[in-house]
Amino acid sequence: MITTVYDVKGMTCGHCENAVSGEISKLAGVSEVVADHASGEVTVKSETALDAGDVAAAVEEAGYELVA
Amino acid sequence: MITTVYDVKGMTCGHCENAVSGEISKLAGVSEVVADHASGEVTVKSETALDAGDVAAAVEEAGYELVA
Repeated sequence: MITTVYDVKGMTCGHCENAVSGEISKLAGVSEVVADHASGEVTVKSETALDAGDVAAAVEEAGYELVA
Repeated sequence: MITTVYDVKGMTCGHCENAVSGEISKLAGVSEVVADHASGEVTVKSETALDAGDVAAAVEEAGYELVA
């Protein structure tokens, strides 16, 4: 299991956290996502390393921006 | 038709606006609700005057606070 912490820009509340974690959770191999709007951090647990582009696309789909 | 503007505390994004307007829209006689997180204002159009307690309860149900 791999744990990766991503920085996401624009989350302001719990709804935002849910939107981001909901989209990232759809990615194959993801087992847990915890988003925190206060820190902007999204912690993702996955079976194998995720493709950064896939994560960026998921965050964008939710309406936010992955900080590179 | 009556237009009333309420001040709601705690909305930080579009999801918050949707949560508040969704709950207020359920009240009988309400025909339109526009919530703006930037100003904290929620503009409600209704057939007749709404009960302030009902509006406060709807806002609370959404997880926010009506500023008296």
